[in-house]
Amino acid sequence: MLQSYLQDTWVTPTATDGSATDVHDAVTGDLLCRVSSAGLDLTGAFGHARRAGGPALRALTFHRRADLLDAVAAAVRARREELYALSARAGATLNDARYDVDGGIRVLRDYAARARTELPDATYLVEGPAERLARGEDFLGVHLVTPSPGLMLQVNAFNFPVWAPLEKLAQAVLAGMPSVVKPATPTAYLTGHLVRIVTGAGVLPPGTLQLVVGSVRPALDLLGEQDVLSFTGSAATAETLRTHSHLVSRSVRFNAEADSVNAIVLAPDVTPGSPLFDAFVREVVTEMTVKAGQKCTAIRRVLVPREQESAALDAISAQLAGVTVGNPAAEGVRMGPVVSLAQRDDVRRAARRIAESGRFVHGDPEKVRAVDADPERGAFLDTLLVSADPEATAPHEVEPFGPAATVLAYRDTGHAADLLARGRGSLAASTVSDDVDWTSAFVRETAAWHGRLHLLDSLTMGQTTGHGSPLPALRHGGPGRAGGGSEMAGVRGVVDLMQRTAVQGSRRALDSLGA
Amino acid sequence: MLQSYLQDTWVTPTATDGSATDVHDAVTGDLLCRVSSAGLDLTGAFGHARRAGGPALRALTFHRRADLLDAVAAAVRARREELYALSARAGATLNDARYDVDGGIRVLRDYAARARTELPDATYLVEGPAERLARGEDFLGVHLVTPSPGLMLQVNAFNFPVWAPLEKLAQAVLAGMPSVVKPATPTAYLTGHLVRIVTGAGVLPPGTLQLVVGSVRPALDLLGEQDVLSFTGSAATAETLRTHSHLVSRSVRFNAEADSVNAIVLAPDVTPGSPLFDAFVREVVTEMTVKAGQKCTAIRRVLVPREQESAALDAISAQLAGVTVGNPAAEGVRMGPVVSLAQRDDVRRAARRIAESGRFVHGDPEKVRAVDADPERGAFLDTLLVSADPEATAPHEVEPFGPAATVLAYRDTGHAADLLARGRGSLAASTVSDDVDWTSAFVRETAAWHGRLHLLDSLTMGQTTGHGSPLPALRHGGPGRAGGGSEMAGVRGVVDLMQRTAVQGSRRALDSLGA
Repeated sequence: MLQSYLQDTWVTPTATDGSATDVHDAVTGDLLCRVSSAGLDLTGAFGHARRAGGPALRALTFHRRADLLDAVAAAVRARREELYALSARAGATLNDARYDVDGGIRVLRDYAARARTELPDATYLVEGPAERLARGEDFLGVHLVTPSPGLMLQVNAFNFPVWAPLEKLAQAVLAGMPSVVKPATPTAYLTGHLVRIVTGAGVLPPGTLQLVVGSVRPALDLLGEQDVLSFTGSAATAETLRTHSHLVSRSVRFNAEADSVNAIVLAPDVTPGSPLFDAFVREVVTEMTVKAGQKCTAIRRVLVPREQESAALDAISAQLAGVTVGNPAAEGVRMGPVVSLAQRDDVRRAARRIAESGRFVHGDPEKVRAVDADPERGAFLDTLLVSADPEATAPHEVEPFGPAATVLAYRDTGHAADLLARGRGSLAASTVSDDVDWTSAFVRETAAWHGRLHLLDSLTMGQTTGHGSPLPALRHGGPGRAGGGSEMAGVRGVVDLMQRTAVQGSRRALDSLGA
Repeated sequence: MLQSYLQDTWVTPTATDGSATDVHDAVTGDLLCRVSSAGLDLTGAFGHARRAGGPALRALTFHRRADLLDAVAAAVRARREELYALSARAGATLNDARYDVDGGIRVLRDYAARARTELPDATYLVEGPAERLARGEDFLGVHLVTPSPGLMLQVNAFNFPVWAPLEKLAQAVLAGMPSVVKPATPTAYLTGHLVRIVTGAGVLPPGTLQLVVGSVRPALDLLGEQDVLSFTGSAATAETLRTHSHLVSRSVRFNAEADSVNAIVLAPDVTPGSPLFDAFVREVVTEMTVKAGQKCTAIRRVLVPREQESAALDAISAQLAGVTVGNPAAEGVRMGPVVSLAQRDDVRRAARRIAESGRFVHGDPEKVRAVDADPERGAFLDTLLVSADPEATAPHEVEPFGPAATVLAYRDTGHAADLLARGRGSLAASTVSDDVDWTSAFVRETAAWHGRLHLLDSLTMGQTTGHGSPLPALRHGGPGRAGGGSEMAGVRGVVDLMQRTAVQGSRRALDSLGA
């Protein structure tokens, strides 16, 4: 039975009645642990965050809060091998695990460095300079950005059990806000181990980091006006949370980062066989296979000029044929299983729905060969490349959250922009072109539908961190279907968690606030 | 029957069946007009905004959009006397009308000037400088802020029928977004006349400003991912809109500015009889009487040290005794009626609920003397000063939206901060003190509960624009009960309506975007 970490103590839930959820090894299907929040004292935990964790963080300056992030990063780094090993049970290859674990460490360090250079050595921020508000010399205005005396409840997705809590923790700590982490059940044991490493190192003040495994429902009614609910997951769950009567009546701040049907657009100037075309193919295959395609930013739609459709299908299929699926611990395996059998079945269903207007060009949704594993017991999937009708609805709305993508042919650039928008808002989109004028015009035309645009060209193709990688410097989140939220984007992600208050006063009063 | 302005034409609703709402003169009770949205082609109107208004605005640079604001300001100014005259029928004195009308003109001009100095002469904004994202020299990141290809639906409150639509229009025009204005029914005729003045001047491109009077319900289902619903009104209505299934499922951006139970806090250092004490009393009385207290920012709670409670009650009561209530057109009248008989009855009910834990110190909720008017037919109210138990709930949660305020005595500064927070978030709060250390500490302690803090001291008291005045330079909106929204705050209010997109690319690609 997986423990929760509440009020600085590991606690076992009381559920012995079968209300707990079983979590299985993604590779072998073996029972790994059971998850429940029965009998947990969430009221006590939230009170502890507010009475101990919040005041302790708010007493520190931004620079001292940055020190905490560095200490957390060091603690995780020292024991990252343990996290790699556990990640394999969730289906992650070593490469996938590094993406999650080392990525999380990097965000902590990046935010620590950023806080030291971009934020003052003070407990709050003044946005100035003071502006005169009236005819006289002594009625001025500035904005103060101060910590909210509340907590952040993280409700996370299963796919980044280390990166996601650390990324949110980085911003919350800097914002002076304690965190209560509620991991997704299928990988709760990984986040649990992360919290064990961090709290075991004793580097954070009491009450600043707590963990609740199991159902999040009972926790929602404990949130208030100064708290933040930071959600990552499906658009459907985001909708349920957004309309939760208690959350709405208490104006609880809500940030959502939801799955979206992200796209890559091959421009008309890129010809098959060129190095940039090959980079495009690699990008698609990488997005389909890293973490078995279980990234909210992963490419689902591949928009190509009609003339290049068959060349693109052939090239992507050829590369996918070389991807070995199997036990991540086995030699030569490039892609592991998805997280659970339920997830595998969801992906199969979604891919079949998209293929209704077309066909599977690579992969078989019904069967898969898995190295060093039983494909009936593990959650394995073949890589699935679909060719579909661009005018159909499903390719733009249905998201197979696994190693699947759909190639859609466009007539001209206007058609491509129109197809792109049919995703109704996304976290990230890529363009592939060496035609600067085309790129510039396309970006201006389509930017409003995306949280991030990744421009692949012959200059960036050797240096890019990839379509799917959120970076601390850049906004993570997107409009519409992507949830309308925003995280990171440098210190903006910290300020977004704090309260901006306009202050009107005399020069003397504003001086006393450091304005 | 009040007309709407759709697709650049004035349209009369088809309701002849009694589904229309009657609007009465606040002073005389006479029928002024009838309001209905029956038969209006809202789908056509929204399409026109998207196809004509949006593209026309987005083709202009920020500086050219600023020119439009100046032209609107000039058009309104040229005919402002007409708006003053109409305002009197809603109960506004000339002073009140100027607050609304001239205030609106000022926001337009301020935003035009701000756009010219703080925004580039371009159609979108680059937030840089470009940051290196990887080891190489040619993978960089910036943020683009581009116009959303949608519209702003303004759902406004009755109390600022001119200022509110112009304030929102200023930001929407600069953001490249057409506006559909839905005024509150009791003062829809005023906003209608404003739109007549603006569109009659022919200064805005077709489709950039439309007006829908009557029910807003049918319009909500027409909104999508790129639109913004900008709401001003009660917290209860904000809640209904926030959970509207279509708005949620389409991730329509929602900004709320809701009534809150705002406060002023007299510090322990200010002694009765001092000039600053007198300024405090004037501020309270002004907030109670300007627009008959019908401002979402108006002071409802007056927090005073226990030792000064009776002095404060006496001084405020004495000033209130000199306020003449009556027909705004009559000589010597300082305060007109509230907007309607229904509103009057709401205020009476709310004030009585607050007085349950105390007493009326000035004014009688049941009767009033009105100069040059029949107090039975007009919506007149006496100024109502209540003394209540600070530990009761009602004074912190019930808002009489009229000429009413409650004095609450606090024990010490910690108690004052605690009482302040019981409002659960407000648009604005004032402090009154010449003790800079007290002010500074109190601001840091309480800022997170407020959108704006107004620091009254001996230096600012002669220059302040007042507790209740939102200014373009400063954030308007507040956390929690105040709706969690944000408007103005300089160009932030414009950027908030646009889409911020992270862009990763080569130096060459970013250069082509002007980054």
